[in-house]
Amino acid sequence: MEELRARIIAEGQILGKGILKIDSFLNHQVDARLMELVGNEIAERFRGSNPTRILTAEVSGIVPAIMVALAMENVPVVYARKHKPITMQEPVYIEVAPSHTKGSEVNLMVSPEFLKAGDRILIVDDFLASGRTIEALARIVQHAGATLVGIAAVVEKIFEGGRDELAQWNVPIFSVAAISDMRDGKIVLSEN
Amino acid sequence: MEELRARIIAEGQILGKGILKIDSFLNHQVDARLMELVGNEIAERFRGSNPTRILTAEVSGIVPAIMVALAMENVPVVYARKHKPITMQEPVYIEVAPSHTKGSEVNLMVSPEFLKAGDRILIVDDFLASGRTIEALARIVQHAGATLVGIAAVVEKIFEGGRDELAQWNVPIFSVAAISDMRDGKIVLSEN
Repeated sequence: MEELRARIIAEGQILGKGILKIDSFLNHQVDARLMELVGNEIAERFRGSNPTRILTAEVSGIVPAIMVALAMENVPVVYARKHKPITMQEPVYIEVAPSHTKGSEVNLMVSPEFLKAGDRILIVDDFLASGRTIEALARIVQHAGATLVGIAAVVEKIFEGGRDELAQWNVPIFSVAAISDMRDGKIVLSEN
Repeated sequence: MEELRARIIAEGQILGKGILKIDSFLNHQVDARLMELVGNEIAERFRGSNPTRILTAEVSGIVPAIMVALAMENVPVVYARKHKPITMQEPVYIEVAPSHTKGSEVNLMVSPEFLKAGDRILIVDDFLASGRTIEALARIVQHAGATLVGIAAVVEKIFEGGRDELAQWNVPIFSVAAISDMRDGKIVLSEN
């Protein structure tokens, strides 16, 4: 999507260690209209998969996921929680994922109330990098006996190899913008 | 808003200690379409205040805030972070708020990049209960030299007195649905 690509080039900041800061429209400040366009694009790709729920992880996956839901006639969004609130009662599905931007591991927790055997799940997240957050979400889908039907991300960092890691799930993987290189302080977008 | 009121009565669960669980459409699973209606309602009330940014706190305030932004011709949303990611560089505005659903205190952090003197800030959150999270956000607005123009919440728990606590800020306060009582395991909505 051209507008997203232009914004990544104009506003993305490389902080070193492969960390890309997109705080001006995705990860701290959010551009609702741009995210609506992103959601439309993802929805178009996966409408035919007939997801019954969209699964994401708090925090930054929530807005893209909700925009996909709006574009898909209101499929419910479930966001995996990283910190268990009092309102979340056990038992929960729980998986551990490494956090790229926190430098440690995080728990991802989903209540069985909102993830059922028979559900068809589309995973939507902000980044596809190493793929390990999405991998943890996919394992939760599997534990629940639900069917994973697709994986979507707003921004893919191709050079981190997440797409290959996720190939074992045998579902379509789509990113709205893909970065092929961030060396030398320069963001290079893939043509695809 | 009638649809929200009906959903709170049908799906809200009282967990004791004044905790209301609305995980089926707001706090774990999210109903995008219902939140769009909520956003429209809040936007209608505050359009005349001409906010330049909408401020909320992660996690559950983000969806209502983003829906207000969509309805308001794309005012940027900034969400205060509770856990500092690597991408968030110091200095930051930071305030402490008690967490109702975590049973402890949380930090709320906003980067000065996205909150400026001269900004007109509408605060949007999921709950208005004791008012202390919103109070912390209002102090951040003040520290930044920005102007608070209004406070909105999806659900107000009137009996926790947050509205009185926030009166000192001297701005309009609006909640889309208000609960007057939760004793005896029954949710009583206010007529207003």
